[in-house]
Amino acid sequence: MTFALHATDGAARRGTLTLAHGVVETPAFMPVGTAATVKALTPDDLRTFDARIILANTYHLWLRPGRETIAELGGLHAFMGWDRNILTDSGGFQVFSLESRRVLSDEGVRFRSHLDGSEHEFTPENVVGFQEALGVDVAMALDVCVKLPATQAEIDESIRRTTLWTKRCSAARSRAETALFGIVQGGLDERSRARSAEELASLDLPGYAIGGLSVGESREDMHRMSRFTASLLPPEKPRYLMGVGTVRDLIAGIDGGVDMFDCVYPTRCGRNGRALTRSGDLNIRAAAFARDPRPLDAHCNCAVCTTYTRAYLSHLFRADEMLGPRLLSLHNLAMLAQLMSEARHAIETNAWQAFRASVEADLNGSS
Amino acid sequence: MTFALHATDGAARRGTLTLAHGVVETPAFMPVGTAATVKALTPDDLRTFDARIILANTYHLWLRPGRETIAELGGLHAFMGWDRNILTDSGGFQVFSLESRRVLSDEGVRFRSHLDGSEHEFTPENVVGFQEALGVDVAMALDVCVKLPATQAEIDESIRRTTLWTKRCSAARSRAETALFGIVQGGLDERSRARSAEELASLDLPGYAIGGLSVGESREDMHRMSRFTASLLPPEKPRYLMGVGTVRDLIAGIDGGVDMFDCVYPTRCGRNGRALTRSGDLNIRAAAFARDPRPLDAHCNCAVCTTYTRAYLSHLFRADEMLGPRLLSLHNLAMLAQLMSEARHAIETNAWQAFRASVEADLNGSS
Repeated sequence: MTFALHATDGAARRGTLTLAHGVVETPAFMPVGTAATVKALTPDDLRTFDARIILANTYHLWLRPGRETIAELGGLHAFMGWDRNILTDSGGFQVFSLESRRVLSDEGVRFRSHLDGSEHEFTPENVVGFQEALGVDVAMALDVCVKLPATQAEIDESIRRTTLWTKRCSAARSRAETALFGIVQGGLDERSRARSAEELASLDLPGYAIGGLSVGESREDMHRMSRFTASLLPPEKPRYLMGVGTVRDLIAGIDGGVDMFDCVYPTRCGRNGRALTRSGDLNIRAAAFARDPRPLDAHCNCAVCTTYTRAYLSHLFRADEMLGPRLLSLHNLAMLAQLMSEARHAIETNAWQAFRASVEADLNGSS
Repeated sequence: MTFALHATDGAARRGTLTLAHGVVETPAFMPVGTAATVKALTPDDLRTFDARIILANTYHLWLRPGRETIAELGGLHAFMGWDRNILTDSGGFQVFSLESRRVLSDEGVRFRSHLDGSEHEFTPENVVGFQEALGVDVAMALDVCVKLPATQAEIDESIRRTTLWTKRCSAARSRAETALFGIVQGGLDERSRARSAEELASLDLPGYAIGGLSVGESREDMHRMSRFTASLLPPEKPRYLMGVGTVRDLIAGIDGGVDMFDCVYPTRCGRNGRALTRSGDLNIRAAAFARDPRPLDAHCNCAVCTTYTRAYLSHLFRADEMLGPRLLSLHNLAMLAQLMSEARHAIETNAWQAFRASVEADLNGSS
């Protein structure tokens, strides 16, 4: 894995991440394919907007279809028919949202499946082993994510275990093509964030994520902590803000020096009839769109906006047709990909501040 | 509209139907797009297996989004982004399955919407007007479909009204680009079928459908009546067997001299995890497929079979992922399109009987 930084504009960064399955231009938004599928979409769909990397979830794939099946079918890329990059999360975040079903120790975390109640254990070692067996391009270290608000003792403990586990993850690595990223914790406390970042940076991993945000705190807190944490991370390595995916939050993230993002927001919205546009989200089921001959977003050149009207998409949702969720998911991801592409161009040309102001003005004009 | 017959082999026919939106090679299977969408699929998907004509439903589109909306958006082709041919049924079949919600007279049929209970009326004139307003390439005449088993009096009455209404449909025509097909009724009674066919043939319509079959009678009865009815129809005009779509029934239909078919079977099966193959249907959720690295059907060169394994498709259905129904729907339609293509080639080369026997042997080998 290599990461090259081509330009900066303020804290915003324009880079290229080269992974085992090709190049990722940053800033980049990574579509989420939890269960080895970006919901409703094929790899060909993802290529229509030139997605270079997608995310899949260790927790879900561990439970179903499981490591053996995916390995037997040739690894996750072959299994799902996607020949570009894949990043898997460590499962830490999902397991920690199972609260009543998990037992935490320094060794790892034991939990019960939400599917059938079966018992499982994640350790730093087996989580790395799983991700390597899948053959992914970026693996995330097992971390301890705290619920916000958190006490200082909870934050301290989460940082201690996250550092301990990240060391063990790093020691467990056995596959050169899988790059291991560490995850900075620290809640909303700057000194804790600084300590976590420093401890993980000393491990000299190829990349770092900002974890424990977008978990219920205010948007202002999230923007502030994301910017602060990014500023503490080694500038020569990629920075990934986990769980962020609205237009407003992506712009703030880039402005704070983040290179990579992921979120279920665009695809979940797509399934629910919510279209992302540069002038704000719109509910396609609204009566106003029933005869609207315009595309979802005049800004957008995606396969959906160049083919279908709001009226048709509105009809699909009112008739409960599967094509509706499919097309809105595609549009929402494609429009974020275009936003990222324009952001990269703006940073390259020292026009980031004007671009950011214009995107924010468009959003505010509609809200 | 023109129809040219290129070859016959026994009763089986190889033809070309030229409609306002291009050429349809026959025998042809028409995918069903009830609510202005072939469920889960885009027009681009349909083009991957070279679909030339699809079906949409007057009853559903009448209720939602309605004639005004579709007309305002430029007609049904523009509304749904499909630039090849569209055939709409007359709504008769759907209305007659509303039993308790409809009142029938010589004038037409009044009914209540299954969506909101609102009152509507179909007459021969307004059903033709609706289909012409949508700009479809083939419109079906309003018919009276009887439930089987039926008394002779019910059959006689259905034939009388169907002929009366078909005459009025023909008189109501005002658009040259929309070809009107009549629908032969007559239940399982040969003399009644002959009377209906004769009455409708005297109207000299551009094409004829065999209606009132595939409504619960035995497979043998359906094959027998379809073949018998086809033999009564003018040989120079296309013959369309409504509601038929299994491999076995399509082969029998072609063998009896039918040129066109439609059915929800392939897409409904696709949504339910049932894959059509040349050796029979398979339930993709079955445990046997969980690690099966083979494509759905070794015979098939569709976009699904050349990309995905049974194991992956099985996973998608077990994980309740929307991509599963989408991909199985695509495969099921594509494999029927290939079957039709091979059937056309067999008829052209006087190899129909051998082809039919081989398809039937493959099906029987697995059951």
